[in-house]
Amino acid sequence: MTGRPSRRQLFGYAGAAAAGAAVTGGVVSLTEGAPSHSLEGDTGGREISPYGVHQPAVAAASPKHAELVALNLLDGVDKAALGRLMRLWTSDIVALTSGRPAPGDTAPELALGNVSLTVTAGFGPRVFALPGLTARRPRGLDELPVMSHDRLQTAWSGGDLVLLIGAEDPVSVVHTVRRMVADAAPFARPVWRQTGFWNGTGSDGKPVTGRNLFGQVDGSGNPAPGTPEFEQTVWSAEPDWFAGGTTLVVRRIKLDLDTWDELTRSEQERAVGRKLSTGAPLTGTAEHDELDLERRDADGRLVIAENAHARLSHHSSNDGRRIFRKGLNYVHDTGGSRESGLIFLSYQADIAGQFLPLLARLDAADALNEWTTTIGSAVFALPPGFQPTGWLGQELLG
Amino acid sequence: MTGRPSRRQLFGYAGAAAAGAAVTGGVVSLTEGAPSHSLEGDTGGREISPYGVHQPAVAAASPKHAELVALNLLDGVDKAALGRLMRLWTSDIVALTSGRPAPGDTAPELALGNVSLTVTAGFGPRVFALPGLTARRPRGLDELPVMSHDRLQTAWSGGDLVLLIGAEDPVSVVHTVRRMVADAAPFARPVWRQTGFWNGTGSDGKPVTGRNLFGQVDGSGNPAPGTPEFEQTVWSAEPDWFAGGTTLVVRRIKLDLDTWDELTRSEQERAVGRKLSTGAPLTGTAEHDELDLERRDADGRLVIAENAHARLSHHSSNDGRRIFRKGLNYVHDTGGSRESGLIFLSYQADIAGQFLPLLARLDAADALNEWTTTIGSAVFALPPGFQPTGWLGQELLG
Repeated sequence: MTGRPSRRQLFGYAGAAAAGAAVTGGVVSLTEGAPSHSLEGDTGGREISPYGVHQPAVAAASPKHAELVALNLLDGVDKAALGRLMRLWTSDIVALTSGRPAPGDTAPELALGNVSLTVTAGFGPRVFALPGLTARRPRGLDELPVMSHDRLQTAWSGGDLVLLIGAEDPVSVVHTVRRMVADAAPFARPVWRQTGFWNGTGSDGKPVTGRNLFGQVDGSGNPAPGTPEFEQTVWSAEPDWFAGGTTLVVRRIKLDLDTWDELTRSEQERAVGRKLSTGAPLTGTAEHDELDLERRDADGRLVIAENAHARLSHHSSNDGRRIFRKGLNYVHDTGGSRESGLIFLSYQADIAGQFLPLLARLDAADALNEWTTTIGSAVFALPPGFQPTGWLGQELLG
Repeated sequence: MTGRPSRRQLFGYAGAAAAGAAVTGGVVSLTEGAPSHSLEGDTGGREISPYGVHQPAVAAASPKHAELVALNLLDGVDKAALGRLMRLWTSDIVALTSGRPAPGDTAPELALGNVSLTVTAGFGPRVFALPGLTARRPRGLDELPVMSHDRLQTAWSGGDLVLLIGAEDPVSVVHTVRRMVADAAPFARPVWRQTGFWNGTGSDGKPVTGRNLFGQVDGSGNPAPGTPEFEQTVWSAEPDWFAGGTTLVVRRIKLDLDTWDELTRSEQERAVGRKLSTGAPLTGTAEHDELDLERRDADGRLVIAENAHARLSHHSSNDGRRIFRKGLNYVHDTGGSRESGLIFLSYQADIAGQFLPLLARLDAADALNEWTTTIGSAVFALPPGFQPTGWLGQELLG
């Protein structure tokens, strides 16, 4: 087959005309193609506009399925070449999130609408060592120092670029990853891939916070999207190009389910400081009740222990500084044996100012350290969103 | 923590009373717990009764997520011990498919209702070498011969027992696998695990056949569940204990997406004998149109080529003998590189009589062999279903 034009060259953009979703910003509907379908109907799916002041998946609930791909730039890829990649990726994002094939899509039928597909992209610290970008590094964007409990593997760490692709449907995730990694081939090659899943829907079909594989409700303490607290926690204001952007910390945390299961239920709850049944703090009755960090039991002991995860990760223990964290469960098999864990994702305006003090405090004292081991770590700057007239990363690379 | 009763011992069955789903046979509803929830609503989920003449997942559509776990029996596990395991698994299945924690569940909150959880279990050929079972082997239940295109890896092949666990929600799948593998620990240990996914829902929310990662509609030629043709194809009648059972072939097929993508779209369609857009045969216009295997084009060439997959796998090429096949897509990552493929699942009354001639013919001539490589192979006898008064495998082991 050598010396012959490839199918992509021949087929080109022909598949792109197959669908006609109206993309106008905000949540959009497939009104032309599927009049009988309710956006809130059978599949739980919808379309999420790729446009906006911010990259849209950051503030959204965890997707049911997601993949993270970290890539390293090839030798010789400079600021201009990185800009070309980002324009290419932008056209992929616009098409695929709308349920249309990407330009030159080799499997156009795998582009599917109504599956809440989102794509988030970002730049690792080394991007800001490229000529022309050294003065534009966001403050605090450095690989994290190695914590005493970390057992980092290079296979799950670092990276110059990241893609975080999420959807209701795993086929859509896999197809989008394949398309975008293929388009990146002249510029960057994947160094790690992490696949995760989350259940943010209760048995009654209503949204819930979701649980990690220890069975804990995970993410209760987050600032609520739309509140001033959220805006202040998540969105960066400087440098200029980064206004409306944020930073992402990715930590791959192995959970030792076997030793965790040896604990009694109340031992598990003491380690977390929350009830397993509802996620309520041990001092409260509902998941979102405020923690009472001073309350003591009849014997004078703190109800939420000194080393409880909920205490140490509470913003009041962190000079009021918050993060916005979302998890993805993962399993990783080697033959018959399985590792289970959490892909911990934290969004914040400033890693050094908000996340690092929290990480150091948890590393020093968190009761959960006995059953958790961080085996991967990476940080990225997620540029602001883009509008129909622009492209992702334009403020930095345009 | 040594010398102390484990959490499972202490906690025992306490979690099992948490939910109260009505399980009566057939598709059941969570009427008490979630009055506002429509079974056809937001999550697409429902409950599938574990009871019936047949194991219920066999005739059902492919689940969105599934895991297959193959286990080998430990030394000394005999017919009686295997019966104890099957009774234990039966109680797990009854609880978990109803959204209730399994007996002694260590993470009871991860048992979730309304996610279409199904569990299918089966016995590999070596089980029928156990004393007391040698005369009861289903006809034709032997590991498949190695085909000329096979590149089998022991890591994905064989096994004494299989669990095939599927659901709308991956957390439920992972939780069920963990619970059932843990309960099997005194009897059997996992030798391989395969995770797959399928999208059987179109953009309009309606059921579709679904596509593999080549982008092909995959499974169009199946007999329709409920038809006499399906009954005859799938359900075994003998030996006595196996009436209402079936056999499962698991083939792990690596797809070479890169070389496949080098083909033109019409080359891809010729290799399959079907249109990529709709799955219709090249001689028809709709997916379920009957193939016209005699039709020739203006140049006198067969429209569905001699070596087209759809021709060679058509039942008319197999003395009228059919199979019921369902696929699961998979991806498997090693660092930054990804393998993509299909977990091919075939159900039939008799492997040697129905599946083997088909496999041999495809191995000899299928055009798709250039882009596909089978790297794993296993066969299992799936016993008939069970009723509330019985247990899975009772006809063989009781």
